[in-house]
Amino acid sequence: MPVRLSASPDRLLPADAAVRRIAAELHAAVADAPIVSPHGHVDARLLLDDRPFADPSDLLVTPDHYVLRLLHAHGVPLDALGRGATAADPREVWRAFAAHWHMFAGTPVRVWLEDTLQNVIGLQRHPSAANADDQFDAISAWIAEPASHPRRLFERFRIDVLATTDDPADDLAAHRALAGDATWHGRVIPTFRPDRYLDPSAPGWRAALDDLTAASGTDCGTHAGLVAALEARRAFFRAAGATSTDTGVVEAWAVRADTAELERIHAAARAGDVTASDAAAYRAHMLWELARMSSEDGLVMQLHPGVLRNHHTPTLQRFGPDTGHDLPLPTSYSVPLRELLRDFGTDPGFRLVLFTVDETSFSREIAPLAGFYPSVFAGAPWWFLDSPDGIRRYREAVTDSAGFYKTSGFIDDTRAFLSIPARHDVARRMDAGWLATLVATGRLPEAEAHVIAADLVGALPRQVFRLGD
Amino acid sequence: MPVRLSASPDRLLPADAAVRRIAAELHAAVADAPIVSPHGHVDARLLLDDRPFADPSDLLVTPDHYVLRLLHAHGVPLDALGRGATAADPREVWRAFAAHWHMFAGTPVRVWLEDTLQNVIGLQRHPSAANADDQFDAISAWIAEPASHPRRLFERFRIDVLATTDDPADDLAAHRALAGDATWHGRVIPTFRPDRYLDPSAPGWRAALDDLTAASGTDCGTHAGLVAALEARRAFFRAAGATSTDTGVVEAWAVRADTAELERIHAAARAGDVTASDAAAYRAHMLWELARMSSEDGLVMQLHPGVLRNHHTPTLQRFGPDTGHDLPLPTSYSVPLRELLRDFGTDPGFRLVLFTVDETSFSREIAPLAGFYPSVFAGAPWWFLDSPDGIRRYREAVTDSAGFYKTSGFIDDTRAFLSIPARHDVARRMDAGWLATLVATGRLPEAEAHVIAADLVGALPRQVFRLGD
Amino acid sequence: MPVRLSASPDRLLPADAAVRRIAAELHAAVADAPIVSPHGHVDARLLLDDRPFADPSDLLVTPDHYVLRLLHAHGVPLDALGRGATAADPREVWRAFAAHWHMFAGTPVRVWLEDTLQNVIGLQRHPSAANADDQFDAISAWIAEPASHPRRLFERFRIDVLATTDDPADDLAAHRALAGDATWHGRVIPTFRPDRYLDPSAPGWRAALDDLTAASGTDCGTHAGLVAALEARRAFFRAAGATSTDTGVVEAWAVRADTAELERIHAAARAGDVTASDAAAYRAHMLWELARMSSEDGLVMQLHPGVLRNHHTPTLQRFGPDTGHDLPLPTSYSVPLRELLRDFGTDPGFRLVLFTVDETSFSREIAPLAGFYPSVFAGAPWWFLDSPDGIRRYREAVTDSAGFYKTSGFIDDTRAFLSIPARHDVARRMDAGWLATLVATGRLPEAEAHVIAADLVGALPRQVFRLGD
Repeated sequence: MPVRLSASPDRLLPADAAVRRIAAELHAAVADAPIVSPHGHVDARLLLDDRPFADPSDLLVTPDHYVLRLLHAHGVPLDALGRGATAADPREVWRAFAAHWHMFAGTPVRVWLEDTLQNVIGLQRHPSAANADDQFDAISAWIAEPASHPRRLFERFRIDVLATTDDPADDLAAHRALAGDATWHGRVIPTFRPDRYLDPSAPGWRAALDDLTAASGTDCGTHAGLVAALEARRAFFRAAGATSTDTGVVEAWAVRADTAELERIHAAARAGDVTASDAAAYRAHMLWELARMSSEDGLVMQLHPGVLRNHHTPTLQRFGPDTGHDLPLPTSYSVPLRELLRDFGTDPGFRLVLFTVDETSFSREIAPLAGFYPSVFAGAPWWFLDSPDGIRRYREAVTDSAGFYKTSGFIDDTRAFLSIPARHDVARRMDAGWLATLVATGRLPEAEAHVIAADLVGALPRQVFRLGD
Repeated sequence: MPVRLSASPDRLLPADAAVRRIAAELHAAVADAPIVSPHGHVDARLLLDDRPFADPSDLLVTPDHYVLRLLHAHGVPLDALGRGATAADPREVWRAFAAHWHMFAGTPVRVWLEDTLQNVIGLQRHPSAANADDQFDAISAWIAEPASHPRRLFERFRIDVLATTDDPADDLAAHRALAGDATWHGRVIPTFRPDRYLDPSAPGWRAALDDLTAASGTDCGTHAGLVAALEARRAFFRAAGATSTDTGVVEAWAVRADTAELERIHAAARAGDVTASDAAAYRAHMLWELARMSSEDGLVMQLHPGVLRNHHTPTLQRFGPDTGHDLPLPTSYSVPLRELLRDFGTDPGFRLVLFTVDETSFSREIAPLAGFYPSVFAGAPWWFLDSPDGIRRYREAVTDSAGFYKTSGFIDDTRAFLSIPARHDVARRMDAGWLATLVATGRLPEAEAHVIAADLVGALPRQVFRLGD
Repeated sequence: MPVRLSASPDRLLPADAAVRRIAAELHAAVADAPIVSPHGHVDARLLLDDRPFADPSDLLVTPDHYVLRLLHAHGVPLDALGRGATAADPREVWRAFAAHWHMFAGTPVRVWLEDTLQNVIGLQRHPSAANADDQFDAISAWIAEPASHPRRLFERFRIDVLATTDDPADDLAAHRALAGDATWHGRVIPTFRPDRYLDPSAPGWRAALDDLTAASGTDCGTHAGLVAALEARRAFFRAAGATSTDTGVVEAWAVRADTAELERIHAAARAGDVTASDAAAYRAHMLWELARMSSEDGLVMQLHPGVLRNHHTPTLQRFGPDTGHDLPLPTSYSVPLRELLRDFGTDPGFRLVLFTVDETSFSREIAPLAGFYPSVFAGAPWWFLDSPDGIRRYREAVTDSAGFYKTSGFIDDTRAFLSIPARHDVARRMDAGWLATLVATGRLPEAEAHVIAADLVGALPRQVFRLGD
């Protein structure tokens, strides 16, 4: 087994030499462009506190469900990866990870990790059981360097704007403190994610209402109160720099319901007694309501449907959520979103970015919707699809109906701060490859491809997410 | 931005030099073959009247929902594109189109338009805001030339046969006049499209029955009358040269119903009182009935399921149908068509060409059905899928189970007369590329690939659509 | 038309010269590796009896539904292919097949047949109407040679282990006789396939219970008896060398039911009076029960859902099953299998290999499930998908979430003994091409690709199917 990491400058570019030459030039022109990250899961406190990362495993393994899931699939228990009730020895966690390195061959996780280990941390070799201790020590030493602290990395990564994901009841203290910190010049903005408040049959719904009542000062004991509180918090988020919201739902149904009916369901659910069909009607209305709010306050609406969360109940009970068993479902958009788009689809104030983990919907629904409705954009390939091949298939599937300028630009969606440049670089390389293929097959002038490549990493995501110039 | 149009002779062929060499030879051998167009939406009157086209926007923008939809998606109102109640200035329409030219980058619309502008009209530059007026004038001048009149273009395009799409109540006057015109030597044939008569819950159904009663002289007040009238009109269409029918439905269910039941539903619907489930049963029976008629009179049955028409009701109400918001749905074939295929699937008189806008059905259902039933052929990629990449994915998906000889040959399905040669050329290039890939990877002898390439543009569509030799 | 067969040594490898060079080396290193065939439909008696094959048509045409279906699709009646009530002249069958050779262009059947005709039988030319009689005679002569007898071919093919597919009531006499035959050194193992016992609404269910009662000595008159009998037969199969089971179902629902309820349904079904919903509940429970058994006895559970058998009832009635009209259905896994995986998904004794004929499920469900559950492996592309392009799409779709080491290795699933080496070679070539693409695009070190290529044909299927070292 070769052990030396060797990130070719042409990695991920098309294999054909002539196409690769075009792609390499396209990529080179945007390789160092600032990173626009309008959707992700990094904690703003990381940058406020600017403390060194804890240890190599906490940095690269334990919190990253992309990494955990495949280790778990190969029989490594989640306890041994630091997710159990009792803490795991970080060195042991790293050893388990390193011993399974070859299990990641061919996966996007491997691409991101190789880039991170080599180009961010400066390691020379592939992880292995043999070098696990040495690499653990080397990464630990790297962590301790001042240049490895979060704020220095934020600069080094050339992050122009970083959006976090936040609960409406969050006080955004970290965001506000950062804004008031004269030593900090980066842009970190919150994203309004009201998922906890949408489903009256969810176990935590009533507690969530209490949190929101406290945060907003508006009584969420009624549906009207909940709506008013959400509106108030949106205003609060906007004042803190938010430009978008995000919503994860199982199905994309958005259907307006009668007010009295909503109050009846709200009251019943508060009393702990809501039927499945009532809960579904309530959820569908809330999605419509969120679109209505977006059309009024201009926050861009991101929609992530089609994920069955926590598929393996015993693992959820023992290790909690985000432990690698959220799973994609067949997902549909055109019929479920018809009423929402009837009411807001051509409203200039409204903007809707559609994501999917069911890639059949790219050519069948998402691109056709984005290719007609001014408000709709085809979101970047997400989660199970944010791989080199997933990105290529996405471009092949959506360009026909939506072109480039009704797509969202890349979204890293990551909790792994160190992986941000690697993830954006993968997208830039794959987009360069796709554009180069269009050039090489006479479908696009090369100069126009350069304009598009630049727009995809800058002007387009800024415009789609209303981030300003 | 480069402005010079430059249609490479190798455009759309595979990027690899060795494969491209093979593909270029395959394409060259069929590039000038006559066009067989067994399915489209050109009006026969265009060729009967042989008048110059109205203006550049009417020629290339306003009637083409492929073009309209992406302009609309970028915020251009349909009024500004000539679809409003009051006429738009054609020059302003062209300016709006030209200013959004880069929005089409990477789309099939762009491929067709570049080919048309350069190779049919003779422009040298990409449209842009800067050259909009010059190009509008240039195209206007081109329109005025005698060589640009429809009949001369029909010859120049080497159209061997052109099928139109016609309502059963149509008197086919244009077709008959063309047939009787001693100065006209082309072949333009009608296609029987009975969609208006299938759904007793559709708003226009009762009026349609009145039209058909008038056209056929058979009273459509009963279900039996409707069936008899349709049969009579099929005979009339056949006498006028028709070789096929076409049917667009939301779902492909085809289930025979009881005669008394059908009469009951028919009567109720005539009285304006039909339930959703009765209407569904009636529609499913009508699809079965159309197959029965095809098995008897030999008209090839084309089936286009899975499109949700007029998704955005406000746009429908204001601008009418065919304004860019028909959308694909997940679509299934094997179960819905089981009864129809039980009864007619192995009948030598019956022929069924299956189309889809849900490309997952190609490898899962359409190719497997075509790979068993003698009557079934896999229709060419349609609508949202009739792009270079869509055609490539189609061949990859259907060849495994259906080979080449259970596919339909290319269908342009266009209202845009000028785009016909561009669309057929795209198909010929992509098929040449696919065949060349098979040759280059040792899956097909090169000489056999040449036979197939020629059959795909000539013998095969002639045979599938019963067009004669 | 060219007539000389010419199997390029580089066939099926990527067209790009640089990638092909890498792929050719990867393929060369595994081209002669022994064949591990953990799933197929060859009869053990073929090797026990070791008689010459009957004739060319019986060898290559009549029993192979892959071949039959496309001939039937081109209008050749099944009678003329030897599947009718009266025997067909094998020479006439071959003539019909040879005359339609070009209909197979581009299909996997053609790839397998070319390899078989040239490299196993030693023909030089493509079949055609002109050479049908000569080739029939040549193949007949080849059949008669001692080197063409099944056991000699088994050795020549380097088959290391061959799994058959067997009914639980089968006495496995051929397997036991082979094991006791001192002149035989191959490994042929049975696979437990209990499909006949799972659906109480199936016409043959009651007769099947009688067979199983006789075979097991346990009364299957009750549900508990059926479960006990199946357990006993699993032990019998394991003793005869079985390491896995196989189950074909229409839908993958696996839900535990109440014992009393099961007995009620069992009794009702024995009396010929079972409702559709009761039958569905019984089937779902049986799938859960089979997983429970697998978790206890360690037999690997193979699951093949999503096929609608015998779509064309008139053909079934006249020619029986396996006549080419089994058809894929849209298929889902994550929700239907949730309870089964809740109970056994992380059980170290349990192993589940998931197959599909709906390729949309690869990236959406199968790979994500295999990427979390230690018990789940992504089965090789099956049936309508076991083609060169199907294999490539499979690797592209599953590697992101499952890597290489949560896939099953290749499964030939064939009844056509002569096609075994061709089918495995296709998989080895396509996997070499995919690995080479990863190498050429900087995603995988070349040395690691060699390790993976070797594991895919040896260590991996051995481990997944518990075949020993």
